[in-house]
Amino acid sequence: MNAPFSLDSNLDGARTQVESLLADRMARLASAGTPRRLHDSIGYSLLGGGKRLRPVLCLAFAEAVEPGASRRPVVQDAACALEAVHTYSLVHDDLPAMDDDDLRRGRPTNHKVYGEAMAILAGDALLTEAFGWVAGDGEAPRGRLCSELARAAGAVGMVGGQVLDIAEDRPATLDYLLRLHRLKTGALIRAACRMGVLAAGGNPAALAAAEAYGDGVGLAFQIADDILDVTSDATTLGKPTQADAAAGRHTFPAVVGLAESRRMADSFVRQALDAVRVLEPDPGPLAALARYSVERSS
Amino acid sequence: MNAPFSLDSNLDGARTQVESLLADRMARLASAGTPRRLHDSIGYSLLGGGKRLRPVLCLAFAEAVEPGASRRPVVQDAACALEAVHTYSLVHDDLPAMDDDDLRRGRPTNHKVYGEAMAILAGDALLTEAFGWVAGDGEAPRGRLCSELARAAGAVGMVGGQVLDIAEDRPATLDYLLRLHRLKTGALIRAACRMGVLAAGGNPAALAAAEAYGDGVGLAFQIADDILDVTSDATTLGKPTQADAAAGRHTFPAVVGLAESRRMADSFVRQALDAVRVLEPDPGPLAALARYSVERSS
Repeated sequence: MNAPFSLDSNLDGARTQVESLLADRMARLASAGTPRRLHDSIGYSLLGGGKRLRPVLCLAFAEAVEPGASRRPVVQDAACALEAVHTYSLVHDDLPAMDDDDLRRGRPTNHKVYGEAMAILAGDALLTEAFGWVAGDGEAPRGRLCSELARAAGAVGMVGGQVLDIAEDRPATLDYLLRLHRLKTGALIRAACRMGVLAAGGNPAALAAAEAYGDGVGLAFQIADDILDVTSDATTLGKPTQADAAAGRHTFPAVVGLAESRRMADSFVRQALDAVRVLEPDPGPLAALARYSVERSS
Repeated sequence: MNAPFSLDSNLDGARTQVESLLADRMARLASAGTPRRLHDSIGYSLLGGGKRLRPVLCLAFAEAVEPGASRRPVVQDAACALEAVHTYSLVHDDLPAMDDDDLRRGRPTNHKVYGEAMAILAGDALLTEAFGWVAGDGEAPRGRLCSELARAAGAVGMVGGQVLDIAEDRPATLDYLLRLHRLKTGALIRAACRMGVLAAGGNPAALAAAEAYGDGVGLAFQIADDILDVTSDATTLGKPTQADAAAGRHTFPAVVGLAESRRMADSFVRQALDAVRVLEPDPGPLAALARYSVERSS
């Protein structure tokens, strides 16, 4: 990626830039000697589409801190690592012992193509390589970025949230839903914003803005996901709808109703828009991303 | 751990020190808000015994570089992280989709106790927290240590080795066995030695010694494992014997015979002993650990 990161109104350009960064890292893994079948399995999921929300947020926050910062290797490594961690979590969540999903983004899930053993190992490798990319040569601020990523992805972050989501005794309350999603999806989205700021050398005010923005966008995004599962159709969504209810999963529409879910999502988007004015006084890419989190169709 | 690290002749003292460091990190995970059942599942495997070879090597190399260095948080974090990565790999390897083992260290495997979903997540959390421990506050040399750990554990390290081990077309040749085990078990053992040196601020000569020593000990340890599987009994070993042959796994005794396997193990121990003289002119803890890698009974 030679051009600085920019956001088209439809995000397609930003996504293309992210795909190119990810393809570059896959090529490096191949030339480093990754066993062929493992490389194929990793690439199948990492390069298999997706919204690329986390890397785009990371790159956009870096640009907001300092125009041109998205060209720095440390920023790009962080962006790719966030997508790798997100991808590993999907590969493991889809396993028969977890959600047992056959379709992801309109394609067979990783374990349906490569088998369960390879899907487990591809997920493990994605998580490990993510830290390898962020750690790079180990120079500052890479150690700090590894710390951020581990906190967001670990036992008190994403994995902890997944455990809350599969707990048998989970209560169908708004408090529990908010806690669960602040961990399961929110932690990594907050980290995406924070890591963009940290990788670009942003100050504490920028970091606080990233935290509040990430919290708002993360929750708005999840509520929108729950709403789409109820209101969309499988072709548009790329996966079966009504899947949450079928799986006995608690959702925002089920717990507080569709209208209140929409109101909450809008309120979290406003939280994000308010937070980010310190970095982006006139509405720009970050404001567009916040609106996109609830206005998308899939 | 207040006393500097020391090695008793039987390793028990060193192991007790490691267990105490690990218990301390488990307590921190609990107070940080890790969901109870996840914490239990992680602790079941992390505090469930084992040789603690990797953390002991890390602490011993740090002491060899600078007496007292094993008291530094960065060294202790690295030691605990190495054990966490090793433990996660065992939890995932034991899963039904992988080796489908019911017993580990004489106890039911993690998924037999907590279920497959929780075992997958406990492994994911252990791997993630390992990087969190090493990354700590992000100050040097923590970024570099994260890089070392990722390289050793990832697609061209431990995970890559596991993929080679489950490949259907793996040849029963010595070359393939050596390549496989230099990745599957060797990479993390080499990293244990290297990270001890790096965390203690050792020079390039010490790092090269750690690499050659780790390579020798790693291969000697694996060959000894294969030999014990043929010659030991289940009570002594804490797991079923003859399991390699039953699983159709290629082993050193099967490929080159028992006598040649013993000769090779001794030769790798000598490689380790030779390498470490630059750090330990008179035989000390590192020499004892190298000998232990082949002379143990389980």
